[in-house]
Amino acid sequence: ARSYNITLLPGDGIGPEVVAVAKDVLSLAGALEGVELRFQEKLMGGSALDATGVPLPDETLAAARDSDAVLLGAIGGYKWDNNEKHLKPETGLLHLRAGLRVFANLRPAAVLPQLVDASTLKKEVAEGVDIMVVRELTGGIYFGKPRGFGTNGNGEETGFNTEVYAASEIDRIARVAFEVARKRRGKLCSVDKANVLEASMLWRRRVTALASEFPGIELSHMYVDNAAMQLVRNPKQFDTIVTNNIFGDILSDEASMITGSIGMLPSASVGESGPGLFEPIHGSAPDIAGQDKANPLATILSAAMLLRYGLGEENAAKRIEAAVTETLNQGFRTGDIYSPGTTLVGCKRMGEEVLKTV
Amino acid sequence: ARSYNITLLPGDGIGPEVVAVAKDVLSLAGALEGVELRFQEKLMGGSALDATGVPLPDETLAAARDSDAVLLGAIGGYKWDNNEKHLKPETGLLHLRAGLRVFANLRPAAVLPQLVDASTLKKEVAEGVDIMVVRELTGGIYFGKPRGFGTNGNGEETGFNTEVYAASEIDRIARVAFEVARKRRGKLCSVDKANVLEASMLWRRRVTALASEFPGIELSHMYVDNAAMQLVRNPKQFDTIVTNNIFGDILSDEASMITGSIGMLPSASVGESGPGLFEPIHGSAPDIAGQDKANPLATILSAAMLLRYGLGEENAAKRIEAAVTETLNQGFRTGDIYSPGTTLVGCKRMGEEVLKTV
Ligand SMILES: CC(C)[C@H](C(=O)O)[C@@H](O)C(=O)O
Ligand SMILES: CC(C)[C@H](C(=O)O)[C@@H](O)C(=O)O
Repeated sequence: ARSYNITLLPGDGIGPEVVAVAKDVLSLAGALEGVELRFQEKLMGGSALDATGVPLPDETLAAARDSDAVLLGAIGGYKWDNNEKHLKPETGLLHLRAGLRVFANLRPAAVLPQLVDASTLKKEVAEGVDIMVVRELTGGIYFGKPRGFGTNGNGEETGFNTEVYAASEIDRIARVAFEVARKRRGKLCSVDKANVLEASMLWRRRVTALASEFPGIELSHMYVDNAAMQLVRNPKQFDTIVTNNIFGDILSDEASMITGSIGMLPSASVGESGPGLFEPIHGSAPDIAGQDKANPLATILSAAMLLRYGLGEENAAKRIEAAVTETLNQGFRTGDIYSPGTTLVGCKRMGEEVLKTV
Repeated sequence: ARSYNITLLPGDGIGPEVVAVAKDVLSLAGALEGVELRFQEKLMGGSALDATGVPLPDETLAAARDSDAVLLGAIGGYKWDNNEKHLKPETGLLHLRAGLRVFANLRPAAVLPQLVDASTLKKEVAEGVDIMVVRELTGGIYFGKPRGFGTNGNGEETGFNTEVYAASEIDRIARVAFEVARKRRGKLCSVDKANVLEASMLWRRRVTALASEFPGIELSHMYVDNAAMQLVRNPKQFDTIVTNNIFGDILSDEASMITGSIGMLPSASVGESGPGLFEPIHGSAPDIAGQDKANPLATILSAAMLLRYGLGEENAAKRIEAAVTETLNQGFRTGDIYSPGTTLVGCKRMGEEVLKTV
């Protein structure tokens, strides 16, 4: 039997609850497809800070690197919000992404027919939306140097960061995006601010140059401010979007909210080789942590992405996705996606229902 | 009688049509309040490029600086989209903002009761939205140095920009925002990415420190990715938003689209002293230019902001705003805001109807 080592990083807040459920679903889906999954759990984020003094212990990074794929719950919480930068849970996450070299972050935002009413957009606008945001994840202003605090000519304090992209960083994320678009509806929209920023001018130039390698794909370009508008005006115009780290952070969250059900949305972060990182896009929701109220479906769907993009186990991935659809069709809903006429369940019970249909 | 010199910059595309209409409305509203307005028209943007070879001729900047306020139509168009950076219409606009030192960009996004159906958001979500985005306009990554193209250690081309803020730049925009919030509903939300960027950490620190000077104002902080979501999820939670140049570019456009009627939205850019710059937020719409189809109301409302924030002529400003409301109540609509049961009119006719009610 094929066997893989999976590192679980439950993290903070609702992370442990949703990861526990997703782990069971992963195991079963794998077993049914002849795949053995071995799990090890490591500390990450605020819980790692509390236990070890750092948000990403060396041992965690080493274990993640040595495994075949990493499933993360969520990190952060009010408790650590005012920590110094190197002691923030978020800094641990950024180091993990960099340490695993997962430069391509895939964030699907699809409106499920069962949940179209959850969107704040009018039904006719939301219905059928199916977007994939491909976000560059290990470059740009998140990692660019120089960065820090300084003093300007007037003796005043300054804070500064560098948005920088090298040609090869743009090329590799663009290639991923073209490939993703090819497996979808063949339309790629590259988002930048090339009317103002040199980093975006290079971005647009490189993406444009690559288009000839992907003759079947219809490439367009859009300024980021316009993209933020068009996602609200007519989200159905988008198939695949590719953009830099910071614009991707903003636009993927906007796109996810357009679906109205961010408790449902997974993400995959992959590199050229080595393990990928899979995580729900929602946060750690400290206010409902430990109350069995969290929606585990985003993490369960992240587990499906782990099987597909991380291990190449398409059949097991499909099994999980079909089980989620079936569970929704049966009317089970956690509080965040509940509507009258459906059956309100907690995190564990939702997991059990998915397990039954896997 | 009080008298003022106004520089008109019609610009490109539909700019000249909408500015012509707004000029007449300005004149009349001024005259009725005992204010004499003298106009001079100058070249700017693509039309300046075609006529003089540069997007912001020295003469235009000098005239703008010498006047009491500047009204801009719109700039840009496909024709100049692939120009080199220093020959882009947008570069002219950035130089104009810098040259006038208008560091505070006020962008209202309010859903008008008459136009609530124009929003793609559900009626109960859109109804009553009334947001003011205060965007820092002459700093940050738009102007930060170093910027340009370079070569990295591997001999690869790079493109880079610098996001940088000095303490005083943050303080002055924050003060404007606190003042704006005070005249509104007393709530200010500062948007940043302080979990990742040092420039944002300084931003948050300075804004927080200033709060004690404005005891009546309720200050909150939000990460930019969350703000992009919350604008879709529940835009009514926002009163005044203050943010940096690039986040403001993105979020103000998103907020404007939430109203569903960007053909209605004005903006004001003001500095510590000297003339302010007033412009509709819509673009030059080259596809409908010269066809008398454009909606002049955004420019007319920009003229009202010019009277209020640029000249301190509150009565004349109110006159224009009341006239726009009345004209909408009478059912007149340009194509962009038309709905069955209303009266479709062109740009000029809309202007005439507003003039009748001024
Ligand atoms: C937590 C934060 C550092 C992170 C980011 O900005 O990348 C998050 O917003 C995300 O999108 O995964
Ligand atoms: C045209 C462009 C340079 C400009 C900007 O990015 O500031 C525009 O998008 C705006 O918001 O006024």
